Amino acid sequence: MSAPRNLFSSDNSSAVDPRILSALGTVDRSHAWAYGDDDATRGGIDAIRRIFDTECDVFFVYNGTGANVVSLSAATRSHEAVICTEMAHINEDECGAPEAFGGYKLHGVAAPDGKLTPEHLRPFLRVRGFEHANQPRTISITQATEIGSVYLPEEVAALGAFAREHDLYLHMDGARIANAAVSDIANGGTEPSLAGAIETLRAMTAGAGVDLLSFGATKNGLMFGEAIVVFRRDLADHMAYIRKQATQLHSKMRYVGAQFAAWIDENVWYENAVAANRKARRLAAEIAGISGVKIHSPVYGNGVFAYLPAAAIEPLREEFGFYLWDVTSGLARLMVSYDTREEFVDAFVARLKELAA
Amino acid sequence: MSAPRNLFSSDNSSAVDPRILSALGTVDRSHAWAYGDDDATRGGIDAIRRIFDTECDVFFVYNGTGANVVSLSAATRSHEAVICTEMAHINEDECGAPEAFGGYKLHGVAAPDGKLTPEHLRPFLRVRGFEHANQPRTISITQATEIGSVYLPEEVAALGAFAREHDLYLHMDGARIANAAVSDIANGGTEPSLAGAIETLRAMTAGAGVDLLSFGATKNGLMFGEAIVVFRRDLADHMAYIRKQATQLHSKMRYVGAQFAAWIDENVWYENAVAANRKARRLAAEIAGISGVKIHSPVYGNGVFAYLPAAAIEPLREEFGFYLWDVTSGLARLMVSYDTREEFVDAFVARLKELAA
Amino acid sequence: MSAPRNLFSSDNSSAVDPRILSALGTVDRSHAWAYGDDDATRGGIDAIRRIFDTECDVFFVYNGTGANVVSLSAATRSHEAVICTEMAHINEDECGAPEAFGGYKLHGVAAPDGKLTPEHLRPFLRVRGFEHANQPRTISITQATEIGSVYLPEEVAALGAFAREHDLYLHMDGARIANAAVSDIANGGTEPSLAGAIETLRAMTAGAGVDLLSFGATKNGLMFGEAIVVFRRDLADHMAYIRKQATQLHSKMRYVGAQFAAWIDENVWYENAVAANRKARRLAAEIAGISGVKIHSPVYGNGVFAYLPAAAIEPLREEFGFYLWDVTSGLARLMVSYDTREEFVDAFVARLKELAA
Amino acid sequence: MSAPRNLFSSDNSSAVDPRILSALGTVDRSHAWAYGDDDATRGGIDAIRRIFDTECDVFFVYNGTGANVVSLSAATRSHEAVICTEMAHINEDECGAPEAFGGYKLHGVAAPDGKLTPEHLRPFLRVRGFEHANQPRTISITQATEIGSVYLPEEVAALGAFAREHDLYLHMDGARIANAAVSDIANGGTEPSLAGAIETLRAMTAGAGVDLLSFGATKNGLMFGEAIVVFRRDLADHMAYIRKQATQLHSKMRYVGAQFAAWIDENVWYENAVAANRKARRLAAEIAGISGVKIHSPVYGNGVFAYLPAAAIEPLREEFGFYLWDVTSGLARLMVSYDTREEFVDAFVARLKELAA
Repeated sequence: MSAPRNLFSSDNSSAVDPRILSALGTVDRSHAWAYGDDDATRGGIDAIRRIFDTECDVFFVYNGTGANVVSLSAATRSHEAVICTEMAHINEDECGAPEAFGGYKLHGVAAPDGKLTPEHLRPFLRVRGFEHANQPRTISITQATEIGSVYLPEEVAALGAFAREHDLYLHMDGARIANAAVSDIANGGTEPSLAGAIETLRAMTAGAGVDLLSFGATKNGLMFGEAIVVFRRDLADHMAYIRKQATQLHSKMRYVGAQFAAWIDENVWYENAVAANRKARRLAAEIAGISGVKIHSPVYGNGVFAYLPAAAIEPLREEFGFYLWDVTSGLARLMVSYDTREEFVDAFVARLKELAA
Repeated sequence: MSAPRNLFSSDNSSAVDPRILSALGTVDRSHAWAYGDDDATRGGIDAIRRIFDTECDVFFVYNGTGANVVSLSAATRSHEAVICTEMAHINEDECGAPEAFGGYKLHGVAAPDGKLTPEHLRPFLRVRGFEHANQPRTISITQATEIGSVYLPEEVAALGAFAREHDLYLHMDGARIANAAVSDIANGGTEPSLAGAIETLRAMTAGAGVDLLSFGATKNGLMFGEAIVVFRRDLADHMAYIRKQATQLHSKMRYVGAQFAAWIDENVWYENAVAANRKARRLAAEIAGISGVKIHSPVYGNGVFAYLPAAAIEPLREEFGFYLWDVTSGLARLMVSYDTREEFVDAFVARLKELAA
Repeated sequence: MSAPRNLFSSDNSSAVDPRILSALGTVDRSHAWAYGDDDATRGGIDAIRRIFDTECDVFFVYNGTGANVVSLSAATRSHEAVICTEMAHINEDECGAPEAFGGYKLHGVAAPDGKLTPEHLRPFLRVRGFEHANQPRTISITQATEIGSVYLPEEVAALGAFAREHDLYLHMDGARIANAAVSDIANGGTEPSLAGAIETLRAMTAGAGVDLLSFGATKNGLMFGEAIVVFRRDLADHMAYIRKQATQLHSKMRYVGAQFAAWIDENVWYENAVAANRKARRLAAEIAGISGVKIHSPVYGNGVFAYLPAAAIEPLREEFGFYLWDVTSGLARLMVSYDTREEFVDAFVARLKELAA
Repeated sequence: MSAPRNLFSSDNSSAVDPRILSALGTVDRSHAWAYGDDDATRGGIDAIRRIFDTECDVFFVYNGTGANVVSLSAATRSHEAVICTEMAHINEDECGAPEAFGGYKLHGVAAPDGKLTPEHLRPFLRVRGFEHANQPRTISITQATEIGSVYLPEEVAALGAFAREHDLYLHMDGARIANAAVSDIANGGTEPSLAGAIETLRAMTAGAGVDLLSFGATKNGLMFGEAIVVFRRDLADHMAYIRKQATQLHSKMRYVGAQFAAWIDENVWYENAVAANRKARRLAAEIAGISGVKIHSPVYGNGVFAYLPAAAIEPLREEFGFYLWDVTSGLARLMVSYDTREEFVDAFVARLKELAA
């Protein structure tokens, strides 16, 4: 039997974490009411409330696109607009699901580092009251961003304050929020303890004025399932219906709840994020000095963005499976996962050196 | 520890079949490309092609609503219409997901036995060419129906022929198609062998002119995941995009493929459906003679619809967990699942006798 | 030159009223700000506020479908439902425009006389809180109804009270509200004076708890343009945007405002409605006794619904242009307009007698 | 009585052309079948076919937004995309009507001169087959553009050829196409004769591979009404239904047809466009030399875009009514209409000189 294969394509390429698989196997085999009226679902919700230390509402859904579409649609009416970055996953990689389901418009702002600031948002206020333009309603940010950067808690808080001041909602697409919460940059420059990471997680979400969080877990160990966490609770009023209408209501929901409970209570989220980030940093450090390689930006989470020598790209992609972020400039996106084997990183570095020589 | 609890609420209340759980545990733990470009997904697709013995296209989705919405939206444009029964799941129980996502209109026809016939459809042809009315495009039937009846292969074929003749598409919501395929009624009055059930399954779908099938498996043993099976292959042209836009594309798709492969290759679908149908028949037989009880219609699949004595309803619901199909007449829906324990059936019968006395 | 031709097809077949045409010709030829910020638009709005004697909000749109879609979409979110009759124009004759634009579901209730009652509505309250069903939000009634009946003010008020009690909105599609307001039935059995008609108009709308009115004028003399009258003013908050997004915002809006001002201030609405209703009553009276003819229901407005002898139908349709309401039973819909010439009515009666003989 | 007021706000601020008003007054006052089955509608369609000299399909609608939404929705499915400029009216000024009605995504390309080229389009082809991205389907260009530039026939033809080559559709928002057709730039540098203008009109539309044209007339003299002209006739197959569902079907359609017939047959389109363009050129020429004034770009149509001295802007706007295209830079948009009086232009020039001094 051949050795297990690895890829740098996406953290979605990882297998289910063994602890999650084990939790799935221990779910009570009795009958349970479907659609969430069961103990395992309640257990998952409780775990989420504990980790955020607040009485939030929680809605489990299938995937990140579902979490984003349901969240945005609860906050934003058809004649309103969502403001995000140009590169936002909701703008670029969901085949127009938000617009198609909710009717609203997405304004993608050019932000090379993937992060919105109040300065990006201010111009959109000019159309307030102008009936020919979608009215700004929701700010959506991604944590960690699509280009690997991380919002500091105070940067999110600045957007939260702006949202409050101007009667907007703040949504966070937290597909990789675990990686952001344990990042050095968001923790005073060092890898945080579990307690520190939880504090940072809270500070960059509820504590910063985030109203709606797409709480991503599948990229970090689950088989399926994400959670919408509603900190501004009036936004939860219609959400059960919107989730159902958006095809995102799972019948056997206890299997989602059980995964989330294990992911949080067994610190899977923390350990996996730390592991992935470490390996990403190592990967970046080891390729940084190779001739023809240029690291695009500091590595905070589990993504390494690097310009690779043109001749190396295709051989490497074939062997190590990754996406080109920008075809023209040869900017590669190397996503590292919690279960990326160290020898796979080594092999990549070695092969790149060889090809760059 | 208390004994496992059972419910007659829905086959969705059942736990995951152990064989499926086991299959999930044996999925290769290597990295794999996400979104279906992996061996386990291909394995699930192959299993489906084998069981239908045809080169169909297969798209895995999360749930039945997703399968229905994506199927109907691939076939039907916004200004067109879907014709179904009034009681159809797509019409009554999906919070308007088809209309919201696809824009088209659902015409719910009154059909007390849950089955459409060409006679129901003919009047809708009158609006052809009338620009003020949604144009008929897609027929959607449910197998087994929401009220427990089953379309015979020749009944489906009559609708298929009507569809061909009048340039319509035929969609089947097969949330409980396994139960229909193994039903006595669709197999000449007897419980079929595995081979016979497969033959019947083919005869009531591809063989009857069904263009699009929502191939339901979650109610019959899976943890999550359903499949859209496209027999009329031009309808598959845009389906990958529609699936993504409808939020129904799973990243770690191998875990869906692996479930389907096991479900089919280990005959889980057949054995579970047979088991559920048998217990449903027994339940019906045993309560049929109880004073004040009237079976609504012959039991073909795994649902028993029965009028219960008014005084018995609430005590029974509290203990055995089921829905009232019609509040006014006291018509109860008792869904039996593959894992409904025999002693649970016995207990229900005993308690009902007691309450009816 | 041949004599002007008439039709019984629809009041839409009528020409523009000369007084309206004249008003269009006298609109100030200066430049004006587009989209309603002009004196003629303000004049039209003022006329509407005067006739309803209330500080309503008014939004001019192009047509009845536009008025209905914008109104319903301001009141109803995608996961909610509108309850109307099966025969409602919004349900049968708008090619699914409400569903397509707003995403919500229309529940068409069987009501042979075209009128909803609280008894029709009550069953829909059962799904309140059930996440699988569109939540009831808006009641939509048509005045006069599609089948020619008229809601009495107290009947509307009963619906208005029901709406208040159960947190629903009440919308009225008033495509032919002028004909209803001057109907004998809604005025104690006699044709009302202008003052009496105005009183009845108010009593059957704002006075009866109607929240949103599609105020129809095109069928009663205008060239184009209808008005949405918002009595429950918080429903106006987003309406300007919804109107624009629904493609219903006219640039040169003064030409709509001027028509409405003339229509109201010169009593065109009243005189035309009285004239049409009178001729309809005469038509019904004169054909009632003809052999093989049966009047379907009392004639209150400007529509005559009558079963005609089978052999007479096609020759009559060719000559007098009208729709069959029901093909099977030979039920004809004869719409009379303010400008239907008396000799045209006479000719119809004569020809029908001839064919029936 | 005060002198008629003028504005530079938009050509929408103009009154109806007297010849159009007169045509409305002479429409046959007989009854006519509604929704376009009448001679005046047929007359309008014939006039359009004559001017384009081709057997196109024609659908009358109410306004430009309606023409655009219906056209784009006939060509583009929900999971596909429309490519336009960032400043396109469909992208900026229709409150998201295309997305809301059709579900598809609009990609707004940065194009400072308002004109798309094949180079803008090519990058979008990269996502072909990538299920996470809306698939490119329709190119939409505006003629004359929002910033006053004009596509030469050969520039449109280059886009048409690109569309053919890559299986895309080409839509033209011709809200000001008359002004473009008579522009010097599109006619070899001189003002064309009527015959020359017609030739240019054909060359920049059907002759250049345009599939769908929103044929704008309201800004150039009509009271209401625009036409969708379908050159690629299979795109007309569903359009009647889409028009109805998009709320854009007028009942008394003869009043639209009659306007179009007069507008074309009496050369109103040509004379008004020539008159407006001339006055715009004069305005630009006269202000160009004023201190602090900078003309943004050559004036080809009826819009003058000029940077005005900061202190002059508000006094001028108050007196002459116009929009600021860019608040920061003081770029004013001065739209000239066919009925803008010469003395109004003079007064503006004089006042600007005074304020700039």
